[in-house]
Amino acid sequence: MEKLMTAKDAVREAIVSAKADKAMSWEEIANHVGCSPVFLTSACLGENSLTDDQASAVTSLLGIDSAHIPALTSCPTKGQRIHELANDPLVYRFQEITAVYGETLKELIHEKAGDGIMSAIDFTMDVEKIEDPKGDRIQVTMNGKFLPYRRW
Amino acid sequence: MEKLMTAKDAVREAIVSAKADKAMSWEEIANHVGCSPVFLTSACLGENSLTDDQASAVTSLLGIDSAHIPALTSCPTKGQRIHELANDPLVYRFQEITAVYGETLKELIHEKAGDGIMSAIDFTMDVEKIEDPKGDRIQVTMNGKFLPYRRW
Amino acid sequence: MEKLMTAKDAVREAIVSAKADKAMSWEEIANHVGCSPVFLTSACLGENSLTDDQASAVTSLLGIDSAHIPALTSCPTKGQRIHELANDPLVYRFQEITAVYGETLKELIHEKAGDGIMSAIDFTMDVEKIEDPKGDRIQVTMNGKFLPYRRW
Amino acid sequence: MEKLMTAKDAVREAIVSAKADKAMSWEEIANHVGCSPVFLTSACLGENSLTDDQASAVTSLLGIDSAHIPALTSCPTKGQRIHELANDPLVYRFQEITAVYGETLKELIHEKAGDGIMSAIDFTMDVEKIEDPKGDRIQVTMNGKFLPYRRW
Amino acid sequence: MEKLMTAKDAVREAIVSAKADKAMSWEEIANHVGCSPVFLTSACLGENSLTDDQASAVTSLLGIDSAHIPALTSCPTKGQRIHELANDPLVYRFQEITAVYGETLKELIHEKAGDGIMSAIDFTMDVEKIEDPKGDRIQVTMNGKFLPYRRW
Amino acid sequence: MEKLMTAKDAVREAIVSAKADKAMSWEEIANHVGCSPVFLTSACLGENSLTDDQASAVTSLLGIDSAHIPALTSCPTKGQRIHELANDPLVYRFQEITAVYGETLKELIHEKAGDGIMSAIDFTMDVEKIEDPKGDRIQVTMNGKFLPYRRW
Amino acid sequence: MEKLMTAKDAVREAIVSAKADKAMSWEEIANHVGCSPVFLTSACLGENSLTDDQASAVTSLLGIDSAHIPALTSCPTKGQRIHELANDPLVYRFQEITAVYGETLKELIHEKAGDGIMSAIDFTMDVEKIEDPKGDRIQVTMNGKFLPYRRW
Amino acid sequence: MEKLMTAKDAVREAIVSAKADKAMSWEEIANHVGCSPVFLTSACLGENSLTDDQASAVTSLLGIDSAHIPALTSCPTKGQRIHELANDPLVYRFQEITAVYGETLKELIHEKAGDGIMSAIDFTMDVEKIEDPKGDRIQVTMNGKFLPYRRW
Amino acid sequence: MEKLMTAKDAVREAIVSAKADKAMSWEEIANHVGCSPVFLTSACLGENSLTDDQASAVTSLLGIDSAHIPALTSCPTKGQRIHELANDPLVYRFQEITAVYGETLKELIHEKAGDGIMSAIDFTMDVEKIEDPKGDRIQVTMNGKFLPYRRW
Amino acid sequence: MEKLMTAKDAVREAIVSAKADKAMSWEEIANHVGCSPVFLTSACLGENSLTDDQASAVTSLLGIDSAHIPALTSCPTKGQRIHELANDPLVYRFQEITAVYGETLKELIHEKAGDGIMSAIDFTMDVEKIEDPKGDRIQVTMNGKFLPYRRW
Repeated sequence: MEKLMTAKDAVREAIVSAKADKAMSWEEIANHVGCSPVFLTSACLGENSLTDDQASAVTSLLGIDSAHIPALTSCPTKGQRIHELANDPLVYRFQEITAVYGETLKELIHEKAGDGIMSAIDFTMDVEKIEDPKGDRIQVTMNGKFLPYRRW
Repeated sequence: MEKLMTAKDAVREAIVSAKADKAMSWEEIANHVGCSPVFLTSACLGENSLTDDQASAVTSLLGIDSAHIPALTSCPTKGQRIHELANDPLVYRFQEITAVYGETLKELIHEKAGDGIMSAIDFTMDVEKIEDPKGDRIQVTMNGKFLPYRRW
Repeated sequence: MEKLMTAKDAVREAIVSAKADKAMSWEEIANHVGCSPVFLTSACLGENSLTDDQASAVTSLLGIDSAHIPALTSCPTKGQRIHELANDPLVYRFQEITAVYGETLKELIHEKAGDGIMSAIDFTMDVEKIEDPKGDRIQVTMNGKFLPYRRW
Repeated sequence: MEKLMTAKDAVREAIVSAKADKAMSWEEIANHVGCSPVFLTSACLGENSLTDDQASAVTSLLGIDSAHIPALTSCPTKGQRIHELANDPLVYRFQEITAVYGETLKELIHEKAGDGIMSAIDFTMDVEKIEDPKGDRIQVTMNGKFLPYRRW
Repeated sequence: MEKLMTAKDAVREAIVSAKADKAMSWEEIANHVGCSPVFLTSACLGENSLTDDQASAVTSLLGIDSAHIPALTSCPTKGQRIHELANDPLVYRFQEITAVYGETLKELIHEKAGDGIMSAIDFTMDVEKIEDPKGDRIQVTMNGKFLPYRRW
Repeated sequence: MEKLMTAKDAVREAIVSAKADKAMSWEEIANHVGCSPVFLTSACLGENSLTDDQASAVTSLLGIDSAHIPALTSCPTKGQRIHELANDPLVYRFQEITAVYGETLKELIHEKAGDGIMSAIDFTMDVEKIEDPKGDRIQVTMNGKFLPYRRW
Repeated sequence: MEKLMTAKDAVREAIVSAKADKAMSWEEIANHVGCSPVFLTSACLGENSLTDDQASAVTSLLGIDSAHIPALTSCPTKGQRIHELANDPLVYRFQEITAVYGETLKELIHEKAGDGIMSAIDFTMDVEKIEDPKGDRIQVTMNGKFLPYRRW
Repeated sequence: MEKLMTAKDAVREAIVSAKADKAMSWEEIANHVGCSPVFLTSACLGENSLTDDQASAVTSLLGIDSAHIPALTSCPTKGQRIHELANDPLVYRFQEITAVYGETLKELIHEKAGDGIMSAIDFTMDVEKIEDPKGDRIQVTMNGKFLPYRRW
Repeated sequence: MEKLMTAKDAVREAIVSAKADKAMSWEEIANHVGCSPVFLTSACLGENSLTDDQASAVTSLLGIDSAHIPALTSCPTKGQRIHELANDPLVYRFQEITAVYGETLKELIHEKAGDGIMSAIDFTMDVEKIEDPKGDRIQVTMNGKFLPYRRW
Repeated sequence: MEKLMTAKDAVREAIVSAKADKAMSWEEIANHVGCSPVFLTSACLGENSLTDDQASAVTSLLGIDSAHIPALTSCPTKGQRIHELANDPLVYRFQEITAVYGETLKELIHEKAGDGIMSAIDFTMDVEKIEDPKGDRIQVTMNGKFLPYRRW
């Protein structure tokens, strides 16, 4: 694991560095790869795994050594940076939303679909900026499969 | 504070009880009040404050003593149930999403709008069930004002 | 919520008390209800929800007031007793197994099925005693749907 | 200790690296060594100790320096990676199972076998993928000796 | 559970109260019951379970209602008072001993008996005062079965 | 401090390494030095300080540079590895014993000797393996001076 | 235990209440009892035990029911209020002193007396106000027996 | 900061090393510098700042490069080693004293001087060994300005 | 203590309730008493102590039983509600300001005044709303005595 | 991220070092750059981002390599040093102010402006030393936009 982790960290650093040198955005890379910017960014940061084709597209676009491809396609250990990120105001606001609205989400998801949860695995997310004369807005759309609790 | 807190707890309990007796959904109550189900539910659970009109609409619809109205319009102390909710699988998934995608959200919001955050105060949220033959899905849409960090 | 929680606690106490008075086992109750002992026990303790029929079967078998049925069928807030249970040696051993074998489970599940997880929602569990002349053994079988991480 | 710990880390890294280079699975290595894949994987990751014969079989199969054998046969300090793994969704699900079903396990083990625990030391575990047209499943079987609390 | 817990708490309180009224020591009660003072005390405080005979001997000796017997023979949830006890100097010294000598115990038990642990379940403990002109001493003797880690 | 700490770590590593090369046990080293194996091991691991004579005996027996002697005789900062050891099953069992029997120890020590504690400083400990046909046992004997609380 | 704890709490409340009604200071009570104000206060607050004579002196002086005497002479569970006191600025300053000067105390005590500690059991403490034209000062004098680490 | 912190660490290490080489005590260094041993030690360990004259006296006495002087006179970030020191028995005893006597200190300081605190900034401390035939004692004297809470 | 604490809680509740019944603001009460709204509010909520005159002014203005006066003038245990308040977004923002600007405050206070701190005891605070066409602003002014670290 | 973080750390170190070499104050640098000392300091320490012009002004004033400019203008991960700073007395006082006055701030901001918060993003802060014959004072002025909670 340690080894693959290091490999994940190395490719992350190589991508962030090349992306800065080429002044490319995550959105441009995602468009080139043909997938969602959220998914592409999370995989490059080490929180998801790419297919071989996706990984090749990333490394060739950014001019990164193809030896990094296995690190991009291997299964990550997720969530490992959350402790250092938890005090950052942007990230904290999402924790605050769960603190303030978590019980509301629980009530409404149960009301709409019964006893179960929204999957965070069979899950997609989008981030958009919505222009607004009173101040632009950020819209985050989360979409997860409803998983009913099994009775057996 | 303690007193108002108790008042918040009392009206919450009165609402949840009357709602169960009348077999009404949060959505029906929200439609009656004329606001979003997420906002209505969060206010009834004690995480937001209603206007006087909204509070009257809730108490008269559910047949609750109007003496509860000040508790519904007072400013709440928010986020107080998160510790007991944090081990619940439905609520935990939202924490997991922040753990896994928090850095991605940070990257993309900064990429789209510069140095700043998505407000959790000037903020709205929607929860929908999306029918899908492969399994229904839950869609949560968060929409917050982008607040640029001030330089002074 | 508080109210329903209290209702969950009340029915739990009524069941545990009636079960002791009638000297019935969880297994006997489960057989009468027609479901798994693990599922039945977890629902009676407040960690899962029963169908109306299952709840009626429980209350009539144990001679409990049918007014408790809604508490048994409502969606629970799960995992709320883990902090007080975490120092109990029997419960701790399962935490220890995750501490010692968690990375092994990660390696082997990824090896067998790719990037994804074993669901704890679409999930069943069995507990059996296996007689053994060198000392009886406990066998716990967990069975959860493999959920592949979605790429989008 | 520090030294042996480092030795454990070094052999772990050597194994993970050679396994990747030779494209071998944990299951293939375990079959060659003649033991369970769970046990073999846990020992290679540093959570269990091998016999001399098992350790030699591993190093010769993977072409690793036999100087690593003492590290594989020495007594490990277990559970040291759990904090960094605890936010990973796959590992968290096992903690969630303990949170949700821990009291149920306690009830049923006591019901079947009296006052005591399931050993996590005199313990075996199996992981299998079960093909299922509605979605493959993962089955984890834990088997531990029942240890009755001694009265003295 | 809650109910049985309350029952455990109730019998604990009844015993501590009757013991004070009758000015009996734990040692006298244990001698009457015919078991070790450590075991007897731990069971009366709610951390172990007695046999029916032992429980009857306790209740009759102390003149406690025999309705308390099932609470004494039921399986306890153990370790629940450790958080409130952890700052007490007498209890803390035992935690300090583990902090200072834990690695030493690990080294010497492995040296003497191989890879395994000392059981805390198949376990007995004695506490003695040893008179000493330079100041009396307390001797605590712990005796647990060595459990070798299973290889499978 | 940092410097002495490093010195403590360096001598620890030198001892563990030389001990492995010479295939000596802690017991053999202790016998050579003329002190208890528990004390010797704890001092070599960095949790106690040796006298000059004891330190010289250790370094000459193991063929370690005598420049390490001051590190062995200096006052250690104790208990610094407990956080990484706390998840190890062997070490955890001792914490569990305190969790389960801590209040019992408190009751019995007060009963035997009055208001006071067992010292962990004026303290000795022994570890023995006791052969037993039903499975060998580990016996740990702790012996500390009783310190009565001073009233002033 | 619970019962004695309650008794400790009850006598504490009775003393604090009677002390307020009679407008007596801790110092006056201590002078009447013939012991140090620090010791007397700590015992009345439930952190130390009095002798029978001391307890009688307290109850008769304050006009408290003598049934409270056993609660004053029983062995307390100490340190239980520290979590609620830890955010109080006066109490925090003593924690800050340990944080800032803890290593200095370690260095100087070892320098003066060798490897050992200052006992917190065979220990006395005094609190004085020292008048000073530039602002009065508080002087706290701690005096504990030096306990050398035993080598065995 | 980082840089100055490193500078603080470097001068600390240089002082501890030179002090050992020259076999000087903290007391001797303090006498040479003309200040209290507690203050001198705390400043050398990185918890206080020296004046230029004091810093020069330290570096010239110990033969340390005068380039270290700014590190000794810069404002430190205090309390950063407390987490690693907290399990050390000598340091823990001071935390225990706060846990056991914190409320007593609060009562007596308020009784003597009203609503306010003892400053830990306008503060001095002394450590002395007091010879005693029944065992030497350590006396720690803390002296801080009483700061009354301001009403405004 | 417990008793006085209860008294603090009781007067707090009486004040909050009477203030709501009379529809008075904290600012009006403070103006009547002749002190700062921040100080008055904090004292009524239990975090500061009033003089006898101030306490009488509060109770007579609000029509509260004068038996509450001693509770208002007694020394409070401060900071006890912070844990329940810490997840509230308004309160959290002040913690966030410390997290983001704490090191900056340290740098600038040291730069302006040398090694020392801003007192939180000899301290005043003001809260004002500043009307602004682009959105009103809140201004919080903190003013504390600079306390230089004593060298001795 | 890691890479940019390192870049943030590197420029921070370069600035702190050059600032010391040139003996410049934060205030002088801020005056040169034309912004507030608080903002300038926080950006140089890595908690805010500068504009290109501001960053160029900093690097040219201090004679730092202009390759550091992107690190100064990139979006920081904020709040990451708070854990190591939290025990420092100067920083702790600000946490204490929130603990003691947090509820008061909540009451008064709600009283003045309704349900909402003071923004920590659209926020400015000033630090001033105020000369005072009775001891200089530090004044910290925080000014944040009032954000009303949105109802939707």
